[in-house]
Amino acid sequence: MGYSIVDKQAINTIRLLAVDATFKCNSGHPGAPMGMAPVAHVLYNKILNYNPSNSHWINRDRFVLSNGHGCMLQYALLHLAGYKLSLDDIKAFRTVDSLTPGHPESHETDGVEVTTGPLGQGFSNAVGLAIAQQHLAGIYNKPGFELFNNYTYTFLGDGCLMEGVASEAASLAGHLQLGNLIAIYDDNGISIDGDVKCTFTEDVVKRFEAYGWHTLVVEDGDNDLEGIEDAIKKCQAVKNKPSIIKLRTTIGFGSLLQGTHGVHGNALKGDDIKQLKTKFGFNPEESFVVPREVYELYKSRGVEGAAKEKEWTESFERYSSSHKAEAEEIKRRLSGDLPKDWENHLPTYSPTDPAFASRKLSEVVLQKIHQVLPELVGGSADLTGSNLTRWKDAIDFQPPSLGIGNWSGRYIRYGVREHAMGAIMNGLAAYGMIIPYGGTFLNFVSYGAGAVRLSALSQTRVIWVATHDSIGLGEDGPTHQPIEVLPHFRALPNCMVWRPADGNETSAAYYVALTSKNTPSILALSRQNLPQLENSTIGKAIKGGYTLHESENADITLVSTGSEVCICIDAVKLLKEKHNLVARVVSIPCFEVFDAQPRDYRLSVLPNGIPSLSVEAMSTLGWERYTHEQFGLNRFGASGAYKDVYKKFEFTPEGITKRAISTINFWKDVPNIRSPINRAFEQMI
Amino acid sequence: MGYSIVDKQAINTIRLLAVDATFKCNSGHPGAPMGMAPVAHVLYNKILNYNPSNSHWINRDRFVLSNGHGCMLQYALLHLAGYKLSLDDIKAFRTVDSLTPGHPESHETDGVEVTTGPLGQGFSNAVGLAIAQQHLAGIYNKPGFELFNNYTYTFLGDGCLMEGVASEAASLAGHLQLGNLIAIYDDNGISIDGDVKCTFTEDVVKRFEAYGWHTLVVEDGDNDLEGIEDAIKKCQAVKNKPSIIKLRTTIGFGSLLQGTHGVHGNALKGDDIKQLKTKFGFNPEESFVVPREVYELYKSRGVEGAAKEKEWTESFERYSSSHKAEAEEIKRRLSGDLPKDWENHLPTYSPTDPAFASRKLSEVVLQKIHQVLPELVGGSADLTGSNLTRWKDAIDFQPPSLGIGNWSGRYIRYGVREHAMGAIMNGLAAYGMIIPYGGTFLNFVSYGAGAVRLSALSQTRVIWVATHDSIGLGEDGPTHQPIEVLPHFRALPNCMVWRPADGNETSAAYYVALTSKNTPSILALSRQNLPQLENSTIGKAIKGGYTLHESENADITLVSTGSEVCICIDAVKLLKEKHNLVARVVSIPCFEVFDAQPRDYRLSVLPNGIPSLSVEAMSTLGWERYTHEQFGLNRFGASGAYKDVYKKFEFTPEGITKRAISTINFWKDVPNIRSPINRAFEQMI
Repeated sequence: MGYSIVDKQAINTIRLLAVDATFKCNSGHPGAPMGMAPVAHVLYNKILNYNPSNSHWINRDRFVLSNGHGCMLQYALLHLAGYKLSLDDIKAFRTVDSLTPGHPESHETDGVEVTTGPLGQGFSNAVGLAIAQQHLAGIYNKPGFELFNNYTYTFLGDGCLMEGVASEAASLAGHLQLGNLIAIYDDNGISIDGDVKCTFTEDVVKRFEAYGWHTLVVEDGDNDLEGIEDAIKKCQAVKNKPSIIKLRTTIGFGSLLQGTHGVHGNALKGDDIKQLKTKFGFNPEESFVVPREVYELYKSRGVEGAAKEKEWTESFERYSSSHKAEAEEIKRRLSGDLPKDWENHLPTYSPTDPAFASRKLSEVVLQKIHQVLPELVGGSADLTGSNLTRWKDAIDFQPPSLGIGNWSGRYIRYGVREHAMGAIMNGLAAYGMIIPYGGTFLNFVSYGAGAVRLSALSQTRVIWVATHDSIGLGEDGPTHQPIEVLPHFRALPNCMVWRPADGNETSAAYYVALTSKNTPSILALSRQNLPQLENSTIGKAIKGGYTLHESENADITLVSTGSEVCICIDAVKLLKEKHNLVARVVSIPCFEVFDAQPRDYRLSVLPNGIPSLSVEAMSTLGWERYTHEQFGLNRFGASGAYKDVYKKFEFTPEGITKRAISTINFWKDVPNIRSPINRAFEQMI
Repeated sequence: MGYSIVDKQAINTIRLLAVDATFKCNSGHPGAPMGMAPVAHVLYNKILNYNPSNSHWINRDRFVLSNGHGCMLQYALLHLAGYKLSLDDIKAFRTVDSLTPGHPESHETDGVEVTTGPLGQGFSNAVGLAIAQQHLAGIYNKPGFELFNNYTYTFLGDGCLMEGVASEAASLAGHLQLGNLIAIYDDNGISIDGDVKCTFTEDVVKRFEAYGWHTLVVEDGDNDLEGIEDAIKKCQAVKNKPSIIKLRTTIGFGSLLQGTHGVHGNALKGDDIKQLKTKFGFNPEESFVVPREVYELYKSRGVEGAAKEKEWTESFERYSSSHKAEAEEIKRRLSGDLPKDWENHLPTYSPTDPAFASRKLSEVVLQKIHQVLPELVGGSADLTGSNLTRWKDAIDFQPPSLGIGNWSGRYIRYGVREHAMGAIMNGLAAYGMIIPYGGTFLNFVSYGAGAVRLSALSQTRVIWVATHDSIGLGEDGPTHQPIEVLPHFRALPNCMVWRPADGNETSAAYYVALTSKNTPSILALSRQNLPQLENSTIGKAIKGGYTLHESENADITLVSTGSEVCICIDAVKLLKEKHNLVARVVSIPCFEVFDAQPRDYRLSVLPNGIPSLSVEAMSTLGWERYTHEQFGLNRFGASGAYKDVYKKFEFTPEGITKRAISTINFWKDVPNIRSPINRAFEQMI
């Protein structure tokens, strides 16, 4: 312990950097940084293990600002701590192409662990980061070698606590007894609408106790640095529960408007800033000032951090001699690369193989690759038996004391918590060395949309095993039958939506999902059986789209995905036999990947000169990009045996044939039919 | 109190109807109905006020099966109680076009209050139903007239409790002190993945106490009918808190597999059914049997309910004499119709009026219509000052004891709880007499996607005021800038997505949203100012799309929405002045409504013969349905002043002009250019 005048100066420096930066761009949130500067300073100076010159050191403590709108707090800390963030970067706060965007983005700014701002996400990511540490410790720590023993700290405000995703994650973290997770709740009593008394009067501490958390309260978060440090250290000592500290702070501390929502989301006025700087002993005429002593204080902390990493590296070198295989595996997993020839374990199929549901084909993939890919850490939102996400003899990730698994277990029982599952997977991926996948029904990926969006934005390798992907789920009915889900995520940038048609395409989907280091994937998988198709191969399918059934002088191209592809194949026969019409069939299991292929290839798949018809048993929105006509379902489905439902909506060879004939007739007078692949200009990406 | 052998028989009848129905379709969830039959029977026979011959009686008690997968419980009850649901309907469980779909759908089945199944929704709807009752009581109840005093009961299981949406709603319900809400938690210890001990070990009762709920535990939910009834009556007596009863039950009670997840989501085996029927004193060879005494018991309860409604109606008649204006208003609100000439209060604009952000234009609408539309009940997910959803002098809906509002208040402080807000709005709309609207950023409507989907499916009139609708929000950056949100909800059937371009279009959006009794709406509104456009009118805009700027012999049609329309208008000038090219401009504020116009009209707006280019600063997915070429943003945005961000991505007159020229050149050799409005066949809707 022991805090000096320099600490106070540092805290005020952080406050004023937030004030100056938000004033300069006339936007942003000064209040939270000003209120949380003391705890942030204590954390970065007395608690957190980090090496600013290597933000990728795997055993660093993780810090997550879940109330991401307070990001000037984080940027000020990263700058002081010596990360790659200059004072000019701070001055460029919230301007185009700066390193200091309006909310923290992990792929933009050195030292930012996860992308936050959408409330509740960061806290839930932190649960994932804590699980990752605990899991890797369970696998790799050995007597004398505590390779993985970092803590995860997260700051959160009232907003995060109100969000359901954080409640889900908190409940699971309590169940999992994550002693390495320490949350600090900024209890400032203010949200955007004003006093939280107008909507948020629950007893937060009691709620977290109900979840099984260790709780503490610090009454004076504005001044009591010793109390803050002491509380955090007490939390560190509680090894079998996550901890939350309720820290009473004053939002906008020092401002004339302190303690009101006037300082939450607006820059301070000029006069207010002047009185503040004077009060804090700074020159009221200067901006963006960092006293030399403050830099020095942080510099010495950085030196300590570098020494800690060196110590860790030396320990790892010793570990490499005594635990050669494990060390090699750690190194490989750190690189994010998969082991050589892993893909040879992907199953392949020929048309004589039996029909399987693609959820079952997914299970086969997991069964065959899980041993060669120890980084795969799976789970399901309480639909294991339906999603088929658990390989035989998998061990659950559970606190050993429960007797139903252990820390090295690679299967997470997420419970019925889709949104938290998505956010936790983002945390798992952000930790490094882990490729998370999680199962639910495709329809309920929508519950986790907030997390999926951040997977895409922050470029994490996360896989959703999204089964029961259409009206083909049958009896559960419209409440569970996705119509709009594929267009939703197809429209999301940097997100691969796969809907494989058979075994080879399922293997291809996994291949691309697992080898795409910076892109999340959603695998839409059928409940019902699908035949193994003639001409499908992994090699073709990894292009995202390919010609499955070629015919010379075809009258039409049928374009489809997933469970409707085999119906198109049957329609080809019907068209030929009954109508003497020739059809080609194209399978496009993934728009995003197909779009990335060279134009010539795409034109060979969807050629000029003949009309095309898409067939997919859900919303047609977006199919106009690839085909001239669309057969889909722009209404909700129906509850019944899946074959009856398909029949009701005419997703049958006859229904397709009828529309194929309409398409051919409608386009027969058009000369030189242009494939929709032809575009006047390139999209900006 | 007082339960006889007939009650036991009734309970077993309910259990066996669930068993027989799930066996017949070999699908569905027998376990929960078997476990909850006792409490359901007590509720329907001793507690619930309902009239089966008029399921629309406004002061009926509401019952919500939040664990909707147990819907055979509800169907059995509705059948026994005498609603329009025959034994044949029960036999048709989970078959196409039956009245008994796989999860309860309010628009399909008489007596089902809300559509449930997606977990957590029903419970949250129940909070909305309870708010509605409390609010209407606050307005219309008078000394001697308790017109609105019904209770809302909801059953929920572990799954609902794990879902974040329910946590959000529970926290708000506790804050609001909703004494008319009674939840019964089916504590059977089992979820699909098996024992809840593997993922859900929190102390539920303590958590609800933390939210401010009254809690009770009933240990023997399988047999203790008196205990159940007593507990519910104790909850009724607690007027200043919502109540939850933790009811310990045995899932699949009576089955050989009782108490295991084997009875959760699978039909029972034939042998098991036989032993069960024998055990319950039923003929093991018969199915779908309802003993005469059971029908009679329920019949007499129905007679009591009809008498209660009659009593209420008589009271309402007396009320109509003493409170004429209120009674007239109640009658009108019950019809769902808006008052005559209300639309005259919608503001209109001319091009000389100043520019306003469409969020501000929305505020003006609310300000002008709230007095004439008392059914409007608004709110925001803690973004009131940003969404501009609160008219001047609005009163908050709050428990009077808090001193910050009252029960008659029409503005709900939802807190940072978007998903619960959506589900609560569904409950408010389902109650009747209320048109709910709620504000958040467009980007965070995605957090509430699960609720929006059910608004659309269950055909509720719910309005999302979704501001900060694009990269135009500027500094907050990519974490808050929607790219994929519009395609998502445009792909959702029966959901109107509006993106108005100016004041008249904003009024039009409200007009259609408010007069569409069976369709939810999302109004995407700008943060930045938009000029009032020449030629926009409410009359044109309510068609969903119209020609804003016509030109003879045009070279191109520019098609746009919202904040990009005025940039297109500027591009028209630039095209003419610099390139001597003539452009028309079409505004399509709502796809869903435009699609419903006659084909000839649509073709007049998007005519054959000239190429078209869409301009919208978000994902282009779906625009191919209307235009030949698309200018959008198929990547994430950027943090900075909005004008800088628009410039970066070239959403400027120059950027549009460049792409318009490319479009014209690309299409100039194509003879007889077809408008995308032309289609080979009609979509199934």
